[in-house]
Amino acid sequence: MSEPLRVLPPGSTIGILGGGQLGRMLALAAAKLGLNVHIYTDQRDPPAAQIAVATTRGAYDDLGALERFAAEVDVITYEFENVPVTAAHHLEQLKPVRPRPQALAIAQDRLTEKAFMRYNQIPVTRFASIDDTATLEDAARETGLPAILKTRFLGYDGKGQVRLKSDADLSGATAEIGHQPAVLEAMVPFTREISIIAVRGLCATSGAIESRFYDCPENTHRDGILRRSVIPSPLSPDDIDTARKIAGRILDRLDYIGVLAVEFFHIETSTSTPCSGRKSLPRLLVNEIAPRVHNSGHWTMDACTIDQFENHIRAVAGWPLGATRRHSDVEMINLIGAEVEDWQRLVADDDTLSLHLYGKGEARPGRKMGHVNALRRRSDDY
Amino acid sequence: MSEPLRVLPPGSTIGILGGGQLGRMLALAAAKLGLNVHIYTDQRDPPAAQIAVATTRGAYDDLGALERFAAEVDVITYEFENVPVTAAHHLEQLKPVRPRPQALAIAQDRLTEKAFMRYNQIPVTRFASIDDTATLEDAARETGLPAILKTRFLGYDGKGQVRLKSDADLSGATAEIGHQPAVLEAMVPFTREISIIAVRGLCATSGAIESRFYDCPENTHRDGILRRSVIPSPLSPDDIDTARKIAGRILDRLDYIGVLAVEFFHIETSTSTPCSGRKSLPRLLVNEIAPRVHNSGHWTMDACTIDQFENHIRAVAGWPLGATRRHSDVEMINLIGAEVEDWQRLVADDDTLSLHLYGKGEARPGRKMGHVNALRRRSDDY
Repeated sequence: MSEPLRVLPPGSTIGILGGGQLGRMLALAAAKLGLNVHIYTDQRDPPAAQIAVATTRGAYDDLGALERFAAEVDVITYEFENVPVTAAHHLEQLKPVRPRPQALAIAQDRLTEKAFMRYNQIPVTRFASIDDTATLEDAARETGLPAILKTRFLGYDGKGQVRLKSDADLSGATAEIGHQPAVLEAMVPFTREISIIAVRGLCATSGAIESRFYDCPENTHRDGILRRSVIPSPLSPDDIDTARKIAGRILDRLDYIGVLAVEFFHIETSTSTPCSGRKSLPRLLVNEIAPRVHNSGHWTMDACTIDQFENHIRAVAGWPLGATRRHSDVEMINLIGAEVEDWQRLVADDDTLSLHLYGKGEARPGRKMGHVNALRRRSDDY
Repeated sequence: MSEPLRVLPPGSTIGILGGGQLGRMLALAAAKLGLNVHIYTDQRDPPAAQIAVATTRGAYDDLGALERFAAEVDVITYEFENVPVTAAHHLEQLKPVRPRPQALAIAQDRLTEKAFMRYNQIPVTRFASIDDTATLEDAARETGLPAILKTRFLGYDGKGQVRLKSDADLSGATAEIGHQPAVLEAMVPFTREISIIAVRGLCATSGAIESRFYDCPENTHRDGILRRSVIPSPLSPDDIDTARKIAGRILDRLDYIGVLAVEFFHIETSTSTPCSGRKSLPRLLVNEIAPRVHNSGHWTMDACTIDQFENHIRAVAGWPLGATRRHSDVEMINLIGAEVEDWQRLVADDDTLSLHLYGKGEARPGRKMGHVNALRRRSDDY
């Protein structure tokens, strides 16, 4: 179990590993609450440093820099899941790290992540490990085809993945991902991708640890990068309940503090393939988790009173969680690469649109430069 | 006329004169839009500096410091109305200053402010100038009693004011305000105090200059300090229309760019005293204006998609204005002095309550430390 949550008073400093746009938006949320942010990053010119009260530049294996950083903060969190676990473990000896580093270990390795889900009876697609001995052919027999070969480590935004449609695609596939440790995943005939942003922390009324859940967006990706999240999604109340239960189980098993994102495949019609255990396919399969605030939760910034960034800060600071209720319907659209140059047209097109820009200089292809939230009045009772 | 509004691209720097909580919240709004903020302040440890990309410390008569500041920013605005007009005029030679310094000149001098309103046929209470020759007795004959003696300059949060109920109060009153230049204002039998937050800037669709208005809060003061703003107020649609017309006229006459607050006395039943011109009292009298974002607009941070801070930044950056529509009903409560120590209870009491703290160290009596917005679902159609 983690140490009891000590409430950090206003004026305390939250250390954040990583200085990208998620760190920047966490810093803005902390500032709203009178909390300071100190960024640790190995990047030049990180967007979060423009907002943070302090920034330490250092590599994740620079123990001296990590220790200086830890000495200046009251609690440590992270904004990306590829923080080396050894760094997080080292920091944990010095200051509380929330969420605990074990969440990193699971999220960094697709095989461990899948095994964790299976162990906890959380539905995932059929998968097989590709290691030194087992061949891709063996794995493909286990999962069936079509399937996706994915590197176990350091995959994000669709990078390090190869689709295998038939046996003919097998040769050369491991070379294509650089012969890295990999996992083969059966392709799921999903209807849509959805996600849930969950947060675990102090309950305002009982003082116990509780989990709260935002609404589930339907997400659309292109070239492996999130393009759009729409809320509400067409999920049934039963499916939403299932998504919450799964996210809640993951949070509890990880003794988690903070925001966690769970991405799902949603399958509208049950089919008989290709589920783990070969029974009929559950309607929701976990694709992956992110132990941090998440792009598919950016809609909460304008459609909820307390957004994912503030609830993460509240959780790691030992403050009671805020409401996760949304007051508006909303569509979030990412601005990727040169799309950001459209900001003036976007703002002029619809004056109820809320623009968020990340203060990044160069609009390189595939780089997340900002997002917009288009709000509509919530139509149902709430 | 002011210079045409040039659109500042993301990454530009907004210079802000003043580093208090209003500057801090402007800096947060700018950061959301990918704009940088550079603060100019004569204060130690200003709350806005924690967020700003840069801070210049200097006196307002330090022309060298002002010039260095101007050289590093693309446009200049201010977050308090007591910026010396000479400083603003000097800066105007170097970079665009928005709103134009004439708004400062009017807001800094209660007599000029009242004369400006009267000249523009905007209803104000009866008033008389107290200068070297005219006595308080002469002035009291003109306004009638009860009346309030107010210093012409540097008054805020109820400071520099004396209530005069009868002739007996006249002796000693000018001494009580330190024999400063003053104005005597007839006391108004008002039902309530309301305000309006207005913004003038670029129209998204037409490209012309337009004014937009947030809803009117009902404001409650204690010891001259705003305690609470409630939205919606009980104002009739006609009264709201009047408030908008008055604010719009002030904006136009000042060729204003940015957010302006107008505080009104609202009089529910017409009476025959004590209005300027001695006709029956109009239902809305202007009390004072603030040429800046305003405490009675803090509710917009949680009840509107685009709040007063973002619309001020958009306006001064030459960006199209955002919507001023509110999506929720809301009550804003200031946390003054030691009240801020209640933050934990407040957050625990109501998880839909949004807490804003200003990062100030010492909770001195009368010091604005933060505020909370309590949101409720908007009940009417919108």
